[in-house]
Amino acid sequence: MTTPKTIRLQCRDQILTSHTSGLAPAYLQANLLILPAAYAEDFSRLCRRNPVPCPLLAVTDGTPKKLNNGILVDSSSEQGFDIRTDFPRYHIYNKGKLQTKSNDCVEEWKDGHVGFLIGCSYSFESALVNAGVPPKNLLLGRNVSMFKTNKLMDPAGIFVNCPYVVSMRPYRKEFIPKVREVTAKYDLTHGEPIDWGFDGAARLGIENVAAPDYGDPIELEDGEVPVFWGCGVTPQLAVEMVGHLIEGQVISHAPGSMLVLDVTYDELREYANNSIV
Amino acid sequence: MTTPKTIRLQCRDQILTSHTSGLAPAYLQANLLILPAAYAEDFSRLCRRNPVPCPLLAVTDGTPKKLNNGILVDSSSEQGFDIRTDFPRYHIYNKGKLQTKSNDCVEEWKDGHVGFLIGCSYSFESALVNAGVPPKNLLLGRNVSMFKTNKLMDPAGIFVNCPYVVSMRPYRKEFIPKVREVTAKYDLTHGEPIDWGFDGAARLGIENVAAPDYGDPIELEDGEVPVFWGCGVTPQLAVEMVGHLIEGQVISHAPGSMLVLDVTYDELREYANNSIV
Repeated sequence: MTTPKTIRLQCRDQILTSHTSGLAPAYLQANLLILPAAYAEDFSRLCRRNPVPCPLLAVTDGTPKKLNNGILVDSSSEQGFDIRTDFPRYHIYNKGKLQTKSNDCVEEWKDGHVGFLIGCSYSFESALVNAGVPPKNLLLGRNVSMFKTNKLMDPAGIFVNCPYVVSMRPYRKEFIPKVREVTAKYDLTHGEPIDWGFDGAARLGIENVAAPDYGDPIELEDGEVPVFWGCGVTPQLAVEMVGHLIEGQVISHAPGSMLVLDVTYDELREYANNSIV
Repeated sequence: MTTPKTIRLQCRDQILTSHTSGLAPAYLQANLLILPAAYAEDFSRLCRRNPVPCPLLAVTDGTPKKLNNGILVDSSSEQGFDIRTDFPRYHIYNKGKLQTKSNDCVEEWKDGHVGFLIGCSYSFESALVNAGVPPKNLLLGRNVSMFKTNKLMDPAGIFVNCPYVVSMRPYRKEFIPKVREVTAKYDLTHGEPIDWGFDGAARLGIENVAAPDYGDPIELEDGEVPVFWGCGVTPQLAVEMVGHLIEGQVISHAPGSMLVLDVTYDELREYANNSIV
């Protein structure tokens, strides 16, 4: 099997420049946000206040090659890890607007930039498969459907009036208790659904579950209802909402194109039980 | 000055049976929820997923006289601490309905009950005074106004479709940045406001800011707008919402009648930086 490190090196060499869904399935993958230092404290606080859409896994520690949480990736060698190159694709934002797409952000990374790794729901998809309730997007070989909602995160500093983004997977009603139970334990990667059913869609302000704002459409068959989870695209929408207040460039991964970490969910859980992330 | 321990002993002796606002102002006070063990894991998870309305400070550790967080109260002697007697007043719920009010819950506490202490916004009111932006409820000598909202917590286990309760303090618009800044650091006791202004009231589904669901009404003068914080009454409303699913009695403090702890906010913050609460 291809190791996480090999995948990161393939990204760094720009051999892998597409999505990472299904790669090294035992290992955690992470969403990215890189901000100028002046906004790092506000964003940390946004994550701590809203751990369901924004579960904070780690923060860079002064350089793009080191995290403050040593077990997530190998930071011990030049080969190990570089946040500027080890995602397949990056989005560069200026004043909240997407400016450039790129396969690295070496030129954009400045002293004083701070990188945040956010948990990703890929982590629980294999658990759903193993429990006999596989997500339809996996069965169809598509990206998950993602929606903007009208549910606001609790604000922190400049991050005011920023809505949740949710991922949606269709399930028959009778499977919802099982689906909730299986994903509940993945609290560092969005945990159990935040809402479900067509009444849930209405509560979240989602008018048409067949027309996602991000990712691929997934048809609902008769008897299926939508089930919604917090989604790691939420920070990118936050940057679009308040970007006019941010001086300097902001960098994210391209949706679906994640960083593959060196740990499994259970290893991360064990680590988090013994420390503050 | 009366010490926290003296106040707790006055509660235990049923000398103090009213509210605790303004008592031992340097020290933290805490909200209470006591649940049968079968629901403790769901409620812990509800708190971890929704730290703004439900900032979890500590959980009892097998007995009503010991917490899993040693520095919050003196658990070292018989005199030190007893969760069943050291609040001024208790509310006893059955199937989500308020059944009895009492000055202790010694008879109701059963083996297997688990007590949760939740942060309280009293903790930041003196900081607002010191910053020159005193809350009007303090100036008027009234209880704070509290409202049910239409903002739902992210669900956990049996706790589904449970709305935020918020506290409201009126401020002139130009003071909002200062009020946000002062309370932001109190992230273990609700932190900065979750919304503000009359548009904020509308977003939260609050139609009349002069008619609170709990506490006292506070008039808004010309130029003042409502400012809303997460509130520790949220867990009690959660118990009312899903109480029909709970077998056995649930116990809370009476709103405003808190437990006075042996630590200041800064001591708690220091402790939390060094451990998982």
